[in-house]
Amino acid sequence: MPTPQNTRTLRFALLAFFSLIVFYKVYTSAYDTKVPLPDVAEIQRAQRLAAAANTPAKDTTVNTPAGFPQAVFPGERANATFVTLARNNDIWEIAKSIRMVEDRFNRKFHYDWVFLNDQPFDDDFKKVTTALVSGTAKYGEIPKKHWSFPDHIDQDKAKQVREDMHKKGIIYGDSISYRHMCRFESGFFFQQELMLDYEYYWRVEPSIELYCDIDYDVFKYMKDNKKNYGFTLSLYEYVETIPTLWNSVKTFMKEHPEHIAKNNGMQFVSDDAGVNYNRCHFWSNFEVGNLNFWRGKAYTEFFNRLDQDGGFFYERWGDAPVHSIAAALLLPKDEIHFFNDIGYYHVPFTHCPTSEEDRLKLKCTCDPKKNFDWKGYSCTSRFFEMNGLVKPAGYEKQMD
Amino acid sequence: MPTPQNTRTLRFALLAFFSLIVFYKVYTSAYDTKVPLPDVAEIQRAQRLAAAANTPAKDTTVNTPAGFPQAVFPGERANATFVTLARNNDIWEIAKSIRMVEDRFNRKFHYDWVFLNDQPFDDDFKKVTTALVSGTAKYGEIPKKHWSFPDHIDQDKAKQVREDMHKKGIIYGDSISYRHMCRFESGFFFQQELMLDYEYYWRVEPSIELYCDIDYDVFKYMKDNKKNYGFTLSLYEYVETIPTLWNSVKTFMKEHPEHIAKNNGMQFVSDDAGVNYNRCHFWSNFEVGNLNFWRGKAYTEFFNRLDQDGGFFYERWGDAPVHSIAAALLLPKDEIHFFNDIGYYHVPFTHCPTSEEDRLKLKCTCDPKKNFDWKGYSCTSRFFEMNGLVKPAGYEKQMD
Repeated sequence: MPTPQNTRTLRFALLAFFSLIVFYKVYTSAYDTKVPLPDVAEIQRAQRLAAAANTPAKDTTVNTPAGFPQAVFPGERANATFVTLARNNDIWEIAKSIRMVEDRFNRKFHYDWVFLNDQPFDDDFKKVTTALVSGTAKYGEIPKKHWSFPDHIDQDKAKQVREDMHKKGIIYGDSISYRHMCRFESGFFFQQELMLDYEYYWRVEPSIELYCDIDYDVFKYMKDNKKNYGFTLSLYEYVETIPTLWNSVKTFMKEHPEHIAKNNGMQFVSDDAGVNYNRCHFWSNFEVGNLNFWRGKAYTEFFNRLDQDGGFFYERWGDAPVHSIAAALLLPKDEIHFFNDIGYYHVPFTHCPTSEEDRLKLKCTCDPKKNFDWKGYSCTSRFFEMNGLVKPAGYEKQMD
Repeated sequence: MPTPQNTRTLRFALLAFFSLIVFYKVYTSAYDTKVPLPDVAEIQRAQRLAAAANTPAKDTTVNTPAGFPQAVFPGERANATFVTLARNNDIWEIAKSIRMVEDRFNRKFHYDWVFLNDQPFDDDFKKVTTALVSGTAKYGEIPKKHWSFPDHIDQDKAKQVREDMHKKGIIYGDSISYRHMCRFESGFFFQQELMLDYEYYWRVEPSIELYCDIDYDVFKYMKDNKKNYGFTLSLYEYVETIPTLWNSVKTFMKEHPEHIAKNNGMQFVSDDAGVNYNRCHFWSNFEVGNLNFWRGKAYTEFFNRLDQDGGFFYERWGDAPVHSIAAALLLPKDEIHFFNDIGYYHVPFTHCPTSEEDRLKLKCTCDPKKNFDWKGYSCTSRFFEMNGLVKPAGYEKQMD
């Protein structure tokens, strides 16, 4: 009769045998990003934390320990980073966002995080964010040339615009820094020294929510499926902030017909084949995209045209319509991806997957009634129609 | 010279050898709750999800698949559960709380979760919460006798009190259901059929936040350290809701001196050795405790005295002062534990560890300036003074 000790030894032997097989499979597998490596990650995080605490401020370059490997499995992941534009006093709001992104996604993948600021980041900001990011956290100070008025801007004219917009009560209408921010996100975030190492990015703003588990590598998905721009929410822009934006776009289209993509997404941004802008844009506080698209010749010439025309200062062009129009015209429409599975909130809008089956599978915590996708002020229906996509069952119930 | 293939085989052999040693250690260890079992948990969760989707409503009993093991490592964890009193329309607020508790703690431990309601839970509530809980989710309907007026209550007198309190603008002063809730949490949550299987509980309310990683087994900690009641926040009660509570407590103390513990925590609840109540109480929307303490003779007689005196209906006694006074008088003071390492928020108060070192180590995302512990309306200083604990460095800076 087997004794408890014998049974235990036998069970150990069997388990050990199967474990060896499993272990060999994992070890020799060419691609398995989901293998948890808690010890390595813990040690690395502790090292980074110690380094962040001891390293003097070096805001214009990288605040990451030398020799820290960029990826646990080099070559098996995408070359990608999170990117956040933040001020020092955003610390607790951005901490909340990092916590969300790590819990729902990055604790399984350990991608890096680049923080950008027009001022030097302080030690508190760096210590808290370094402790939270499971990849390497890097801190960059934005060069003056990327956060200031270009020489060709008429300061008196720009000032007059701000005063007029303020009188009209347009949100951020009188703000200089908001304009620098929109121009920076339109033309320069992907040019920052720290960003040059990467191919893909995921933009994260303070105080967002992520509602659903993301169990696959979003960046690898982009690469493997040849997607260059990804969004969760779309809506109409305030017309007062962009009265002449489309004129500049039309000038660009005339000057550079060679940059307009075949099978582009014109239908998403114009209801009359390009005569007028319908004000639809992807909401750029969430973006997953290919940095090389923004760095390429087509977008560079697109941005330069817009920047030359001065609407970032003479009006209040946002980076959302600028990015969206560029993605719609310069990319084939099938390179733009709707991340239905990423439940997302940025005040005041929610994207929550429409299908109950999806929500349960992805363990979403969002209230489906708050889903903005099919409401009147969203442009996501247009994206579906343009691409011949079938709207999910039950979408009609969420239309208002 | 070693070929790459040889090197790889050698590396595998070495890794396999060390892995076997580690595996044997873990397997034979008497206590290691941190071994991740993602596959088992995933399968079990999928099973539960499927079961929840297919099981008809059985609100008075357990909605959990038969044969589902209660613990992954029976005997190595505490016998414990989360417990939540909720209504069906709390679904998204409780989903947020579960997500928090799972992310910061329970995804590593898979403890069960008991949901209680005075009405039957609907399918939506059960599906969403079952999907989120990494242990077994159970749903109980509270029996009428635990959620109604006892026979000895004079309904006219109780009604008059509600009208008077409403006129005085006392929060929930005119609410019947709030009173049932306070009496239920005071006297009956630990008596529910589903709760009888457990020794320890952690009470969770809708819309809480947990700010810091909890990497150890909180329930095991309670058991191993002979703690019977744990809190994160303490404060003063509104005197209008409990004018005669202390009279009832004094009656109990006279009737049952045998139940008053040696080395009790009287100093926490009274500044004059028991003549008057100082209104200090542990904030009971967070509680980790021993169910057998509430089920024991001392507390049963304490609750019965209070219930007989009628203050749940003739005043508006809350379960927080009732639990707190009982814990202070019926337990030795060293059996009450302050969970400094559990960063916590319930509108409108925050507990955030005072020490920066702790916050970074535990990856806390709370703003230390919001920590309530040392502010004038908190009683936590008294708890420290009673126990001769040294307040953390920097506490003076958080006093207002």
